[in-house]
Order: sequence, then C-alpha cells, then structure tokens
Amino acid sequence: MRENELIRGLRARVHDPEGMLGIGDDCCTWTPGGPTCLSTDTVVEGRHFLSGTPPGLVGRKAAAAALSDLAAMAARPVGAVCAITVAAGWDAAAVMEGLITELERHGCPLLGGDTTAGDRLTITMTVWGERAAARFLTRSGGQFGDLLAVTGPLGGSLASGRHLRPEPRFDMAHWLADQPAVHALMDLSDGLAMDAPRLAAASSCGCLLLPAEVPVHPDVPDMSDTVRAACCDGEDFELLLAVDAAAWPDLQVRWPFPTALARVGMLLPQLGAFCEDRHGQVVPMPWTGYEHRV
Amino acid sequence: MRENELIRGLRARVHDPEGMLGIGDDCCTWTPGGPTCLSTDTVVEGRHFLSGTPPGLVGRKAAAAALSDLAAMAARPVGAVCAITVAAGWDAAAVMEGLITELERHGCPLLGGDTTAGDRLTITMTVWGERAAARFLTRSGGQFGDLLAVTGPLGGSLASGRHLRPEPRFDMAHWLADQPAVHALMDLSDGLAMDAPRLAAASSCGCLLLPAEVPVHPDVPDMSDTVRAACCDGEDFELLLAVDAAAWPDLQVRWPFPTALARVGMLLPQLGAFCEDRHGQVVPMPWTGYEHRV
Repeated sequence: MRENELIRGLRARVHDPEGMLGIGDDCCTWTPGGPTCLSTDTVVEGRHFLSGTPPGLVGRKAAAAALSDLAAMAARPVGAVCAITVAAGWDAAAVMEGLITELERHGCPLLGGDTTAGDRLTITMTVWGERAAARFLTRSGGQFGDLLAVTGPLGGSLASGRHLRPEPRFDMAHWLADQPAVHALMDLSDGLAMDAPRLAAASSCGCLLLPAEVPVHPDVPDMSDTVRAACCDGEDFELLLAVDAAAWPDLQVRWPFPTALARVGMLLPQLGAFCEDRHGQVVPMPWTGYEHRV
Repeated sequence: MRENELIRGLRARVHDPEGMLGIGDDCCTWTPGGPTCLSTDTVVEGRHFLSGTPPGLVGRKAAAAALSDLAAMAARPVGAVCAITVAAGWDAAAVMEGLITELERHGCPLLGGDTTAGDRLTITMTVWGERAAARFLTRSGGQFGDLLAVTGPLGGSLASGRHLRPEPRFDMAHWLADQPAVHALMDLSDGLAMDAPRLAAASSCGCLLLPAEVPVHPDVPDMSDTVRAACCDGEDFELLLAVDAAAWPDLQVRWPFPTALARVGMLLPQLGAFCEDRHGQVVPMPWTGYEHRV
C-alpha cells in the first residue's frame, strides 16, 4: 500500500471535530481549554505484541496504552496523533481501524500522524488531554505515611492476552482527583515492583510493598508464584494511588466502582524500595519488575 | 544501558521551564497560551539515516525535521517529547544529546518521552507550538492564480549529507504569516514534485510546476539531471508558499532574508499536477517525488 493511499483512507474514516484541523496538513491544530497534559508511548512488534497478533488488536493496544497515561493524570482526552512504521505482512489499514475505534470509544479524535516503512511494526501514539477535575494527579504528591492502593487485581496479563485490551481507568481517575485525600496517581505498566518505587521516588519517599495483600488476577495460573506474578508481570494498566492513611476507610466505603480498591503498601520517610516477607520482616525489594534494556 | 539510567541522564540534562512539568511523570503538563498546533514525525535507520551516521546528527535531524513542521505552520515551538527505539550499537545518550541541543537552539524544551529497544534505531518526535503571528498558515488557503514559490535552492540533500542538518525556517515563516498576500504554506520533505500537488490538492486546486525556474542547490552535481534532482530528491526542508500573483513583485522587494524567494509554479483551477516541459508545453507531471511504501 502506498503512503498516500493509507492517508486517503484515514482522512475518509475520521472527521475533524468543530474547531480542530486534523489529518492532512503539516500540523493539526486545536484551541486548548486550559492546562494540558501529553504523553507519547510506543509499542513494538516482538516486545509489546507478537507477529501473529490480529492487526486490529495491535492498534487497540497502542491506543489504549497511551490513553491510560492520560487517565493516570486524571485528564480527559482531547486529541491523538499516530506515527506508524509498517512492516511487510501487516495490514496497516486494519491496525489503524482498531486504533481509531479504541480512540473513539474514549471520545478522542485522531488528528494526524506519520507513516514510514520498516522491519517491525511499530506504533508511537501521542495523546493529550485536559483536566477532568480541579487538578492533574501526578506521581509526585505522595507523603510519607500514605497508603498505596491499586484499582484492580494484577498479574498474568501477557500469558492471557489481557495486555492487548488495556482498559484506561478514566472514570476511576476522575473520581479520585475529586478526593483531596488522594495525593498521587500513576498507571501500572511495568509491574508494581518497579512502578511503586517510581511513584515513591517522585514523591521523595521510599516504599514498602505488602505482597501478601496484592490482589492476584484470575489470569495468573494457580500453580505459579502468584505473588511474584502480581508484583512483576506488568502490563496491568490498573491505577496505583497514594492516599492519606486516615482517609482510607472512608475512601473504601465511598468508592463507587465494582472492583474493590486494594491496599498494597505504604510510603516511607526513608528512600528505597522494601517489602514485607512471609514472616512479616521488612526486606529490600527482591524483584525489579520489568525493565527494558535500551 | 538500562532504561532508568537513560531517563536519569535526561532528567539531569534538561530543566523544566517555569509552569511546566517535564520528564518523569505519566504525562508532561503545560498551560497553553492560545491556539496550538502539533506534529509527529519519525526517522528510521536505513531510511532517513544510515547505520554509520554519527548519533548526535541522527538526534539533530529527528528534532529539526519535526520542528520544520511547526515552522511550516508559522508557529513558534512550545514543547517536544521523544519516543526512541534503541538498537544495538547505538549510543542512545549521544543521540539524545544531539536532539536536545537542536531543540534548545530553537527554544523548545524536551518534556518527556518513551524508550524501547528494537532492531533499528527509530525516533518519533512530537512537537507542538503556538502562533507567532495572527494566524497559522496551512496548506489549504491557496487560490487558483496564486504563484508557488520556495525559500531556497533544492536537490542533492541526501548525497551531500545536508539532509542531516535541516534548518527549520521559523524566521521566514513568521514573516510570511504577517503578509496577507501569502495564502498557504508547507515545508518540502518529499520533493517539490510530490509536495506541490499536495498543497494544491489541500487548496482544491491543481498545480503547474515550472521546472526550468526551480533553483538548483549547489549540492546537486553538474553532470546529473539537475532539474529532476531539484524537483524530486526530497529532504530539502525549504518552505513552499502560495502567494497572490499581484503581490509577488512587492513581496520579493520586501523579502528580508539573504536567500531569494524563487517562483516555481502556480495554482490552477483544474485539479491535477502538471509541468511545463523544455518546449514550454504543459504536460502531466512526469515525476512522483519520493513516496514511502508502507
């Protein structure tokens, strides 16, 4: 497929919202309504999906994983652009159809992009959004003594294929941003064992994980090291929050979503990543989660 | 190099401007000053640069090519994020140093990004900006009868290595946006023979190229088909503008930049791409410029 043909197809598929200029110029344009947040996120064949994955699911994952970063700020989506490097054997139009459908599900218009050819299908989504509540929720607002909690069970997303259908937690994040007791927020992409220390470090705190309390997703096989799977598998795209410990019972009672909030640890005054072992002893975190070598 | 190590180095290298949240959270944040434009642009090893290219130049090209899209809207840069897929043998820190230096040269902060590993070094830059004049200049404002002009000589950029050092034409674009007679603008990345028909189509016009008048860059060897090189080589990153023919002499006189504006064609009422051959006959455009197969 020639580049112009793909772009023609996309222009026919999408419609520019009122006041926005989308696909087809050197840039897209829009008029922001206030403070804006933006994230860029890449998925690569062989790392984030396999060569046999249905193309529509690849596009869906690329869009949803990027949108999850907007949810993690308690933002609502405003726009997206997509840079796609197409490899032989991939149906670029089907990838883009899955991607656009997922964006549309969250009210996010596709406003532009870039197409190139290469050896591996690679998609870099850039998404931006505006505040859905009075503030963005960043990683850096945590205070020592805060509890760490997650919005759903973790682990097993790769083996089960759940990682191809991440669910950006917009509703939950918008509700959390309205609670003054919630101090910090992020989404879990590299596993709790790696991401919780990141939130803690951004808040100038250390963290203590309580692995026995981490909710294990049904996708994790019973025979495996279920605690390790829940802490390290990654690609869960649940939210991790830091919340004032005194407000925790009230927050649990008022939480309006079907999946329970689960306490998984706390922030410490001393830097570093620790966890409670089976005997209740605090030890240095034994796992590092998933880290890309670059 | 581990991902966290690269990111730590970048955080130490860059400084967030007042009021902006940069590298290290789920999103960057800023408060826009008004209408905003955004572009995403990918460079891939083996297509946009070779494996032996100095890494700092690869970063420089990635940044400059993306910024050129902001210039093409007559915008000034506000921020940038970079998604880099690092392949074995590349010094990612050196790539990023070249990239950040080029952004800084144009007053553009690097505010975030994503790192992955892959088989080929691939960089997707997303840049955004605001109006430097009273309007953005798009591709779609051209009117039939308008002259097409370029801001500098074309051709030979790949063979000479000039394509690694594109110069975003911010000053020229900002000046042009202040001239009501200038109706449309774009930057030339795929060659005049492909890009001029794009501007014309976006303006619901056809175009007539005058190949004999296209200024040929000194990088084009004398022995080659110089006209074809100037029209088709691509990666020039000069600006192409559509201007009211009646205002053209005055515009030339007042043009304050050292390189002369050069007339290269005109917009036609009938759709299609045409050019004047050596005998002054109008014929269908014989070249298609550079088109990626995807």
